[in-house]
Amino acid sequence: AAVPASSNKPGMKTRLKQALGRAARTRSEPWQPDPALWGLTGGAQGLCLRGQALENMVAAHGSPLHLVDINRLDANTAAIVNARSAGGTRTRFMCSYKTNPVPAVLQRMHAAGAGADVVSEFELWLALELGVAPQDIVYNGPVKSRESLRRAIAAGVACINANSMTDLQRIGEVAGELGRVARVGIRLCLAGGWSGQFGLTEHSPALDAAVALARDHAHLELIGLHVHRGLWLRTAEAVRAHVRAVLAARDTIADQHGVDLSMIDFGGSLACPTVDHVTGLRQRLNRSLGVELPAPAPALGPAEYARTLLETADACGADGLDLIVEPGRGVTGNAQMMLCTVTDLKPDPDGFDYAIVDAGIHNAESLYDEIHAVLPVKPTDGRAARRYRLTGPLCTPADVLRYSITLPELAVGDRLAIMDSGAYFLAFSSAFSYPRPGVVGLAGDSLSVLRDGERFADIIARDHLARTPD
Amino acid sequence: AAVPASSNKPGMKTRLKQALGRAARTRSEPWQPDPALWGLTGGAQGLCLRGQALENMVAAHGSPLHLVDINRLDANTAAIVNARSAGGTRTRFMCSYKTNPVPAVLQRMHAAGAGADVVSEFELWLALELGVAPQDIVYNGPVKSRESLRRAIAAGVACINANSMTDLQRIGEVAGELGRVARVGIRLCLAGGWSGQFGLTEHSPALDAAVALARDHAHLELIGLHVHRGLWLRTAEAVRAHVRAVLAARDTIADQHGVDLSMIDFGGSLACPTVDHVTGLRQRLNRSLGVELPAPAPALGPAEYARTLLETADACGADGLDLIVEPGRGVTGNAQMMLCTVTDLKPDPDGFDYAIVDAGIHNAESLYDEIHAVLPVKPTDGRAARRYRLTGPLCTPADVLRYSITLPELAVGDRLAIMDSGAYFLAFSSAFSYPRPGVVGLAGDSLSVLRDGERFADIIARDHLARTPD
Repeated sequence: AAVPASSNKPGMKTRLKQALGRAARTRSEPWQPDPALWGLTGGAQGLCLRGQALENMVAAHGSPLHLVDINRLDANTAAIVNARSAGGTRTRFMCSYKTNPVPAVLQRMHAAGAGADVVSEFELWLALELGVAPQDIVYNGPVKSRESLRRAIAAGVACINANSMTDLQRIGEVAGELGRVARVGIRLCLAGGWSGQFGLTEHSPALDAAVALARDHAHLELIGLHVHRGLWLRTAEAVRAHVRAVLAARDTIADQHGVDLSMIDFGGSLACPTVDHVTGLRQRLNRSLGVELPAPAPALGPAEYARTLLETADACGADGLDLIVEPGRGVTGNAQMMLCTVTDLKPDPDGFDYAIVDAGIHNAESLYDEIHAVLPVKPTDGRAARRYRLTGPLCTPADVLRYSITLPELAVGDRLAIMDSGAYFLAFSSAFSYPRPGVVGLAGDSLSVLRDGERFADIIARDHLARTPD
Repeated sequence: AAVPASSNKPGMKTRLKQALGRAARTRSEPWQPDPALWGLTGGAQGLCLRGQALENMVAAHGSPLHLVDINRLDANTAAIVNARSAGGTRTRFMCSYKTNPVPAVLQRMHAAGAGADVVSEFELWLALELGVAPQDIVYNGPVKSRESLRRAIAAGVACINANSMTDLQRIGEVAGELGRVARVGIRLCLAGGWSGQFGLTEHSPALDAAVALARDHAHLELIGLHVHRGLWLRTAEAVRAHVRAVLAARDTIADQHGVDLSMIDFGGSLACPTVDHVTGLRQRLNRSLGVELPAPAPALGPAEYARTLLETADACGADGLDLIVEPGRGVTGNAQMMLCTVTDLKPDPDGFDYAIVDAGIHNAESLYDEIHAVLPVKPTDGRAARRYRLTGPLCTPADVLRYSITLPELAVGDRLAIMDSGAYFLAFSSAFSYPRPGVVGLAGDSLSVLRDGERFADIIARDHLARTPD
């Protein structure tokens, strides 16, 4: 573990990397995302949303800052809520609380007709607090405390989807204690979908036992199934395959056990079209050789998703069933962006220019394995392209937002918009060394604060301090 | 992207994995951590710390729960604060705010003589709020806002370590605006140590320019260097090599530029002895084949670290210098544990039994790439060993605390202690679907609440809700 002698000459390894990097970069096409994809326009003021300059928003409300495009959120929500198949089939949209837990965002979706997909007692509490009718709440997730079940059953939520036999038995026990009948679904794993800690596997003895228990339990009413696809749905073909597989499984189970499964919850997994997974290999190539990450693969939006789902359900004879979907990411993802500020530009002998910004991985954990567009807010005319390593403010080498990205030459003080921050950015955010950022929303051309930025005192509000000497 | 037909028979791939797993497991020795390493004793009440049953603490204060062993924290702190070399050299211990930001923990270290290593305006504010004398505060980090610099310079902190030329110029500008002289150090990168977005590289033109600027600036007083080793210091040899390298660099720079560098900050990087990094390969083998993670490599504790550092400094003729160390993890890491509860046990056809607990990766992000001991709290006598996949309560497949771990057979309701949660667990924790847990401290046999668990209303305290219909 001795520290080797240092040198100002790049070593063999560095020079090899530089040569390989130059070779690799000539063959990789950097993604040049068009701001129009998000309804952003350019001009002398820099990027604007419906005429409002992003620069002014950060100047007024602080950096970093999340900006919700309320119009886009409304449009994405409406695309699902208002979807009807040719046969008149519709689907209920339960918005995913875990994906974007900002109450003002949730309220907006509820106002447009969405219900709530909750996965914890906190989220259940919040849905009821926001005035969501219990019959519009579905309670999911791998851990449901007895207290949360009492709350859910007493309120009379639409359905509690049991994750396991233990979960199902616990729901039955709590319902019995309350003298109520709980409406339950069973979380089912199909081949190729989510499994692991989630749900019961098709054709398994465990599933048969759970269906039988739910069917025969005095305090349970088995009303349906919940199937989460996992991975991201990017194509109509994948949506059709999922719907067919779920409905086929439903028919099999209903026939086999003589149960009426009228509620079919297709789960979420709808991709945000302008975001993609980054494989470990891509990440390593981006890190070591500066090979640009590829542009996201094409993906269908919420309207096509809902239409495809409904048409497939119709074709499978699912009319009369209560169809539920829970696409979180595909609805809120691209309706939000994170604005931040370049605080330092530091050349590095290793060949990367570091662009250090005031938002870090603790605000944007998704960037560990997703590619998101990064747009410079200032007009880019006449600025040469330059390769940067984009890092955050934390005092840890893990605080890297992108190992290599080509951007117009930056200056300290420049703002950047990290796009599609509407899914999981806030959910996973921590107060690591820095207070958590605020959230503003733009509805039409009217900007309002949805969530205040954290103040220093907020961070220690739950702490008991020893008395210090005056 | 079609979903393949499902089957209840394990496929070829699964059977191959199972066979490989069986073969690999026979050769891998599971780590059986001894609770005595943390001063824990067994008995009919299950694990106890100084006679206090962990089970009772969770029952009284909720699950999950962080428990700080105040006596151990005191001992770790004293080991560094009280260390003296044979020649009488001592070192100043600046406790790392980012590593464990709980005020009561910080106050305890300050009361024992520690100063503060802060890396953001929030942490600087907190140190001053906790009554730390400005001359005991060092301000580090890659992003320092002008406002934070005004606060630091006006207070008169011991040293501001500049991360880059931009940072140094900004410090000089702000000091000039205030009509003050700021004491600065330069963050230096040595070969084999942290670099990237951090600091200036030895023998580089950028370093020379920064030293010259700091030396000649009317509002800056260059007093020293800050060098962070990176990786984890586990051996006395590694400590000696680091000290020698830093002091050699100091002499070179002082001679070359004619500057007096009297403050030498050796940074942190001291390992927590019972924690180790997990390589990607080990993680994949644990995940795919159930190969147990190896026990952590041996590592020196804070007393031996401080003694080794001081003796090496003495031998290098560093007497008279102001020596600073910032070991966060090595001091607070093993003085805290996270207690949680098994909420479900779910067999899986793939061969893993899932043990689902109420603490997740959002409470313990370090578990992504570190091995921490997991101790069952209940007496283990007569319980057969069983292999589990340990997962959390979040509705995401990423919520895995350990892919494969052998534990005495568990029951729903059992408590587990995830050890060494004192470094980065709380710093990186989020309110993902669940409120953040409370923190209690045991001093002698007296238990007190250091931080209240988050309540549901706390999570949305900064939110502006639209008015909902009554």
